[in-house]
Amino acid sequence: MKAIVFQEINKVALADVPRPTMQSPDDAIIKVTLTSICGTDIHMIHGAAPMMPGDVLGHEFVGVIEELGSNVDGFKVGDRVAVACTVQCGKCEMCLKGILPKCVRSGVFGCGPLLGNLAGAQADFVRVPFAQIAMHKIPAGLTDAQALFVGDILSTGYFAVTNGKLAPGDAVAVFGAGPVGLCATACARLFSPSKVIVVDPIPHRLEIARKLGATHTIDPTKTDAVNEIKELTGGAPTSLLEEFSNRSGADVAIEAVGIKPTFDACFQAVKPGGNVSIVGVFEEPQELLMSQLCVKNIGITMGLVNVIHMARLLRIIEAGLLDMTPLITHTMPLAEAVRGYEMFDKKLDNVIKIALKP
Amino acid sequence: MKAIVFQEINKVALADVPRPTMQSPDDAIIKVTLTSICGTDIHMIHGAAPMMPGDVLGHEFVGVIEELGSNVDGFKVGDRVAVACTVQCGKCEMCLKGILPKCVRSGVFGCGPLLGNLAGAQADFVRVPFAQIAMHKIPAGLTDAQALFVGDILSTGYFAVTNGKLAPGDAVAVFGAGPVGLCATACARLFSPSKVIVVDPIPHRLEIARKLGATHTIDPTKTDAVNEIKELTGGAPTSLLEEFSNRSGADVAIEAVGIKPTFDACFQAVKPGGNVSIVGVFEEPQELLMSQLCVKNIGITMGLVNVIHMARLLRIIEAGLLDMTPLITHTMPLAEAVRGYEMFDKKLDNVIKIALKP
Amino acid sequence: MKAIVFQEINKVALADVPRPTMQSPDDAIIKVTLTSICGTDIHMIHGAAPMMPGDVLGHEFVGVIEELGSNVDGFKVGDRVAVACTVQCGKCEMCLKGILPKCVRSGVFGCGPLLGNLAGAQADFVRVPFAQIAMHKIPAGLTDAQALFVGDILSTGYFAVTNGKLAPGDAVAVFGAGPVGLCATACARLFSPSKVIVVDPIPHRLEIARKLGATHTIDPTKTDAVNEIKELTGGAPTSLLEEFSNRSGADVAIEAVGIKPTFDACFQAVKPGGNVSIVGVFEEPQELLMSQLCVKNIGITMGLVNVIHMARLLRIIEAGLLDMTPLITHTMPLAEAVRGYEMFDKKLDNVIKIALKP
Amino acid sequence: MKAIVFQEINKVALADVPRPTMQSPDDAIIKVTLTSICGTDIHMIHGAAPMMPGDVLGHEFVGVIEELGSNVDGFKVGDRVAVACTVQCGKCEMCLKGILPKCVRSGVFGCGPLLGNLAGAQADFVRVPFAQIAMHKIPAGLTDAQALFVGDILSTGYFAVTNGKLAPGDAVAVFGAGPVGLCATACARLFSPSKVIVVDPIPHRLEIARKLGATHTIDPTKTDAVNEIKELTGGAPTSLLEEFSNRSGADVAIEAVGIKPTFDACFQAVKPGGNVSIVGVFEEPQELLMSQLCVKNIGITMGLVNVIHMARLLRIIEAGLLDMTPLITHTMPLAEAVRGYEMFDKKLDNVIKIALKP
Repeated sequence: MKAIVFQEINKVALADVPRPTMQSPDDAIIKVTLTSICGTDIHMIHGAAPMMPGDVLGHEFVGVIEELGSNVDGFKVGDRVAVACTVQCGKCEMCLKGILPKCVRSGVFGCGPLLGNLAGAQADFVRVPFAQIAMHKIPAGLTDAQALFVGDILSTGYFAVTNGKLAPGDAVAVFGAGPVGLCATACARLFSPSKVIVVDPIPHRLEIARKLGATHTIDPTKTDAVNEIKELTGGAPTSLLEEFSNRSGADVAIEAVGIKPTFDACFQAVKPGGNVSIVGVFEEPQELLMSQLCVKNIGITMGLVNVIHMARLLRIIEAGLLDMTPLITHTMPLAEAVRGYEMFDKKLDNVIKIALKP
Repeated sequence: MKAIVFQEINKVALADVPRPTMQSPDDAIIKVTLTSICGTDIHMIHGAAPMMPGDVLGHEFVGVIEELGSNVDGFKVGDRVAVACTVQCGKCEMCLKGILPKCVRSGVFGCGPLLGNLAGAQADFVRVPFAQIAMHKIPAGLTDAQALFVGDILSTGYFAVTNGKLAPGDAVAVFGAGPVGLCATACARLFSPSKVIVVDPIPHRLEIARKLGATHTIDPTKTDAVNEIKELTGGAPTSLLEEFSNRSGADVAIEAVGIKPTFDACFQAVKPGGNVSIVGVFEEPQELLMSQLCVKNIGITMGLVNVIHMARLLRIIEAGLLDMTPLITHTMPLAEAVRGYEMFDKKLDNVIKIALKP
Repeated sequence: MKAIVFQEINKVALADVPRPTMQSPDDAIIKVTLTSICGTDIHMIHGAAPMMPGDVLGHEFVGVIEELGSNVDGFKVGDRVAVACTVQCGKCEMCLKGILPKCVRSGVFGCGPLLGNLAGAQADFVRVPFAQIAMHKIPAGLTDAQALFVGDILSTGYFAVTNGKLAPGDAVAVFGAGPVGLCATACARLFSPSKVIVVDPIPHRLEIARKLGATHTIDPTKTDAVNEIKELTGGAPTSLLEEFSNRSGADVAIEAVGIKPTFDACFQAVKPGGNVSIVGVFEEPQELLMSQLCVKNIGITMGLVNVIHMARLLRIIEAGLLDMTPLITHTMPLAEAVRGYEMFDKKLDNVIKIALKP
Repeated sequence: MKAIVFQEINKVALADVPRPTMQSPDDAIIKVTLTSICGTDIHMIHGAAPMMPGDVLGHEFVGVIEELGSNVDGFKVGDRVAVACTVQCGKCEMCLKGILPKCVRSGVFGCGPLLGNLAGAQADFVRVPFAQIAMHKIPAGLTDAQALFVGDILSTGYFAVTNGKLAPGDAVAVFGAGPVGLCATACARLFSPSKVIVVDPIPHRLEIARKLGATHTIDPTKTDAVNEIKELTGGAPTSLLEEFSNRSGADVAIEAVGIKPTFDACFQAVKPGGNVSIVGVFEEPQELLMSQLCVKNIGITMGLVNVIHMARLLRIIEAGLLDMTPLITHTMPLAEAVRGYEMFDKKLDNVIKIALKP
């Protein structure tokens, strides 16, 4: 079958690889009908974690059940399914605590030997371990495109928002309007915040953010984003004494980029007593100004996406309350994915997400 | 009246100052019967926040009600009370959220103009604003010494533990066996953890930690604390591949010092999916290894103590479940506090806490 | 001044009563600009709790600050404010736990001597104790009508929904489309449930429910509501064996009436593992089928409204996410309130809520 | 093999039955080394749910792995294990929510066709479905007796306490000092309540309760338990007006019997704002005095035990913080279990729990 494989650092290729086969009664083989290129794929080909030449990439996908293990019930061959980007057993102490990404048997599709050594989904077929927990039927009325992001970036956006404990009437600041930041923006709206402030330097992305529910957008190359957020949420302090009693800021600040400026801004923009929710993927260490923060009474969360709410998200999409298809700026055959990778990595042609059709 | 006052950086003195007077019907005037020197006092005289020469120091104290505002009910002159180190109104949005230390009308006794400009408690008398919420009657059977720490370091220890969401059967690692770390150790025991691991280089402090409930103590100058904690909680990984599925570590890691080695160790020692609870006071920025941490699924909390559980803590002490008097290694008259400050700052004579009698 | 007073069981009157005066520096005197008749007023005149002849009724209101105690800051005479229906001190252990309605100094306006003996708000002026915590400025752009319900039924609707722990994608069933049920319906929408099912026999009320966000409405005189809810949420069981594994039902069932049929239906309609949230006011004992329920793993909550989220609700209204003015079917001068009481008690002329202008 | 089987209502027998065989790669066959008679067994033989003649009874047990499915890892034949009384898949939406007893594939050992049709554990061998999640290794230092109750009544006691949200310093009232009530008593101590009040008419049981941590015991045939609990927790009201502001009562009231007097007492004894946690098994409907309760702001929980904390409980036992062996008043060979059933049903010879050795 055809698949996109890692060749060497910064080099991917279309290749013929063996079609996956069942290895456990908990497995399913999925015929991929739509997959995508994700920011994590780019991190992988940059060398964030080791991959072997020939390893199939990709972990965000929907498809049709081609083969089904005897241990998987409630599904049948031919069902259309959305699949989680991570695998998890549902049976270890981490899973029982609800922390699926830290399952002792976990892995991520297409992310190399250290992350479960699972072949990726940018292929005609993919094997899904622990399929009972990873697969969710796509409701009849939904297209593949509507369900495509449920197993990865949409779950990540929801994870960002719920980790931040966003509540109705709160103000939330989302740093970064890339795919994950835009998903966080849309998911934030599900909790009826009074203000959704999105910060990104790319006008095209801010425009999509506004469509998805941003009430305010800030280009940080033109405006001091932290100051603007404080002005929008009670007013920035104008003296040291005011600083003492100033309680402005975002109730929840979401980091969805993974670089120093947005990391720093989150901690400045968050309200005392608020939460910083980090979902950006970082390549560098970051500094916390602990002399100030250690009395700011904030909570911070970070971590690999928890896909525990996929069924919930599919119901929300089905109910018409969430539509992430505006993120798909490009759709192309899987065979052209090498070009897609370049476009996505270099952010060409206003790309947000590229959908690939095997 | 007599009081201990700030003179200049690193210099305190015994002085005659005017006795405080009532300024609001919400106030009470407390005759201080026992107070202490706290690590925060040391931070203050080191210049952590501005103080004016002559400002009275001190914020951890118990006493007897001398005068009572007309708006304060349920108390009478002569009642013995434990008092919170912070003041809070109970009526602003921060208070209603339960985040008392970020009350818009908050302050800390004896911490200078930026922190509410409130005279301190190392004095014969102290004025307590919003006294209804700050004061708690000391149960009849308890001594002043038993109640002395409820309003500050014991609340801090409880805050550390509950922020960390410690649950029965968990493993907790406490970094630092100074006064706050020891309070965290004792409070941890209230939740029946299976392991309470305390890390500190001072043998005398580890000995007290064991008395207060530590099941394991580590001297980090002799043992690699992080590795030892992993061995005690499932085993340290011995290969990269094991690292991927390793889930050892403390469910909760508590930072109770405020320096780089303990900060770093917390993030290494905490279990994936666990919590780092920071109560140490930091003078320097700290670095997070975000490339590793951003997939570790941890929660982090920090902040000024929330005194919201003082009534609860007094009931626990009364029930015989918590006794912090072993921390009081020295008791001296208030008049000798200048010597006490030196002893405490330099950790002379195995000092843990010094109680001062006005 | 003019006020509506209790005369005897089932009899109210317009009367001249003394204008309230300040009794504490924590008080404010409010010139009432809009008030309402509430279901609780009807319970009171039916004799639910003792009232004295001449006691002023009413507890849902907005107004303008006429006098302000010296202890209340952040407000000035002339400010437009929404006021909580309950008073609470913010300083007792119940308040510190966030359970404002059980404050040891609590009361309800216009509900007689057992509930704080506070004169009601169906009057030209009303005294507000603990005004700092009870009053919230009405944002400049909002009318009195938009803010009228924040201090009582809208807070009750929000309380119903948050007690039920409603989450995005859930199904919620609201039993009763009276004023409180309709507020619960609108507040439910703030959490993006996939289905909002409202049950009431009055077509006019169901019509308003649909405007406020109901996705499905059921007239229980025509349809078996419990069966319909199960059909909408996974399918009703058709055999005993199916019953064992059936997990259909509403994630959250809200009782907003206070009678046997809706009470019973909540417990049948709720999903195993779900929550029943009771805000209806009951005059009779109710029966639980414990032999079935004791293995259904549900949570149940009940209680007097907690007004702790008024500031949040005002921000939500200001953001345009909540508009309860469709509930005001009638507006009349305070002087005509006696007629209003009759209309409201007998549900004449499709009345939902009556606003009274002093 | 030998097993205890249901014959007809109120009649059990020792019988020869076929030894269970593996049916799925997720199964394990356990050689039972210690099992017990549980209150639920008695409910079953009374006819609470249908059983077929010859069905093997029993669901509380420990044993040794005899055969192991290929899908179960981390265990090996010969491992000593404690096993959950319920089976659950870990993969359905209920399991992912952490509500294991409502798993769509759930069942209870030895409880007949409607509860999963699983042969019971009062036998030489038992088949355990979804063994990966149901089995937990018994730590090396623990005896079978120490681990025997982890999979059922000890999990139930922990479930009762955590459902009630018991916190340090709280007062908890446990109604019923049978096996489940005693487990709740011991588990309550893990959270350091200031008062643990146990109510039961049998002196022998109250004596064990005191050994397990009760600070106060009440014989309700001699003392008004509700009044006594209020006296112990702030004082009972002596007038209607005091009733209004009275906030005495247990923070958490646990129902561990399943009859009217204890059900009613829980709702009277619980503090306003507190929680009633029901784990008793009821055969009759119960009445709630809703006119009073609907303003009492309580939470109520009920349900079949959630075994999600078994690993945690084993660690707690291993740490020496919990020892339930005092409950085992009798140990006998499985062959004599018919006599044991009679003794247990009639509460003869001060029996609390009977351990059976196959």
